[in-house]
Amino acid sequence: MSKRVSGFPSPFHWKVRVYIEDTDAGGVVFYANYLNFFERARTEWLRRLGITQQELMSSLSQVFVVSHVSVDYLAPARLDDELTLVLHIERIGGASVSFSQRAWRGEVNLANAKVKVVCVSLPDMRPKAIPSAWLKRMQDGVSA
Amino acid sequence: MSKRVSGFPSPFHWKVRVYIEDTDAGGVVFYANYLNFFERARTEWLRRLGITQQELMSSLSQVFVVSHVSVDYLAPARLDDELTLVLHIERIGGASVSFSQRAWRGEVNLANAKVKVVCVSLPDMRPKAIPSAWLKRMQDGVSA
Amino acid sequence: MSKRVSGFPSPFHWKVRVYIEDTDAGGVVFYANYLNFFERARTEWLRRLGITQQELMSSLSQVFVVSHVSVDYLAPARLDDELTLVLHIERIGGASVSFSQRAWRGEVNLANAKVKVVCVSLPDMRPKAIPSAWLKRMQDGVSA
Amino acid sequence: MSKRVSGFPSPFHWKVRVYIEDTDAGGVVFYANYLNFFERARTEWLRRLGITQQELMSSLSQVFVVSHVSVDYLAPARLDDELTLVLHIERIGGASVSFSQRAWRGEVNLANAKVKVVCVSLPDMRPKAIPSAWLKRMQDGVSA
Repeated sequence: MSKRVSGFPSPFHWKVRVYIEDTDAGGVVFYANYLNFFERARTEWLRRLGITQQELMSSLSQVFVVSHVSVDYLAPARLDDELTLVLHIERIGGASVSFSQRAWRGEVNLANAKVKVVCVSLPDMRPKAIPSAWLKRMQDGVSA
Repeated sequence: MSKRVSGFPSPFHWKVRVYIEDTDAGGVVFYANYLNFFERARTEWLRRLGITQQELMSSLSQVFVVSHVSVDYLAPARLDDELTLVLHIERIGGASVSFSQRAWRGEVNLANAKVKVVCVSLPDMRPKAIPSAWLKRMQDGVSA
Repeated sequence: MSKRVSGFPSPFHWKVRVYIEDTDAGGVVFYANYLNFFERARTEWLRRLGITQQELMSSLSQVFVVSHVSVDYLAPARLDDELTLVLHIERIGGASVSFSQRAWRGEVNLANAKVKVVCVSLPDMRPKAIPSAWLKRMQDGVSA
Repeated sequence: MSKRVSGFPSPFHWKVRVYIEDTDAGGVVFYANYLNFFERARTEWLRRLGITQQELMSSLSQVFVVSHVSVDYLAPARLDDELTLVLHIERIGGASVSFSQRAWRGEVNLANAKVKVVCVSLPDMRPKAIPSAWLKRMQDGVSA
């Protein structure tokens, strides 16, 4: 039903800048905000594949929801840092995709995450198959 | 079409606590987050009047949107502070309400805001009259 | 070095209200924002024990940082929902505390989290023992 | 003491993408989040001039704080929109800068803001002159 994506051609990279909105009184990026950074990377990976969540929502009444996330925080990021987010697909199921995502500042690994997203129909929020054309693009790592 | 609410019985008070999520690397509450605090106060004022935005949205396809906001920042708030938000109605129109809102920490005035919200219909986002029963409750300052 | 807290008297409960700031275009609470809710519960649990992070930071130059978080999302929360956050201590080490945290809306379990926080010294961010008086309060579940 | 910057060469442009984190249950960008977008534009304008707030904070113990903001919301932005933020300097004083900032989606003007930032010293938060070399760069609109 699901399969290892051993052949996914290469990880996807996305850069984000740390702004004051991302920091907290500890002087570093607030840990919850890494979820936003990782989300942006997944969104841009979908966009690279020609998939927008807006289209999914308006034309198919389906959305991707996050069903699981885990993050290990290794080192802090600070104001003005430029972070590189690296995304690997770990597994693609019919209605879900599992990602391994890492945040780096240069050679320093700041945070590592596992994220599972599930495609659900609205408004009942039940799992629904990812459109097959999109699944194929995800597996091949190429746009339409 | 609109009128001064000279007789609004008394200002509405709401307390919020400052958490790490609200702060920034300057060690103080991030200025944009006062808009959240003021929003919470308006929401709780509506709830006190027996009005929930969820109900407005689902039963009438109307929502309140903010059309204007201005804030003067006078003094910073810090982690663990308890803030008191004071809300006055300045003007009620058929489809809009203007508020004066202040944030205090004890006797210290931290920020003052003017906020105008407009009631609009979905999905076209055009101004639409606030339900008259709700207008009356706002003017009288009492629940149903 | 660390021990199971089998005798921790009872879980800690904290209620939060869902405001528009917490939601996203899917019409539900944005998943990253549960980390804020869980953080508020931990902060209030510390406050109940007579411990404030502000004091820890200013008097001892130590802060609690989150080193690991994992969340399973089971059901969505919506605008105006009142959520109950339930916090259990799973393990207390010399410089770290592990929590199990759950979010409920009435009888519905919305999200479950595991969170590990580490006490570190500033500015070098190295693990440093939690003050022993505070450790004792955490283990006993009572204030000073 | 302050002067109109009639000769500021040209407005500064910065693009941002709307992610799910920026939206609310109304299906549009949450109004408070425009303050983040406008902040990012000011930060990138400073960076263009060779000025980073991190440097200001660590080497001079000074920070820019927002003392006033007002925003008129004209039209909503949605998920996946790319917004262009246009920044004009309205006035430069010895310790403050006033900006006019606009948000556009293509030809549609979404929001207009006035923002005043003041340079203050830490930790007393009193106004302090912006370093003269930086003032000159702001007035000339060029980097060092």
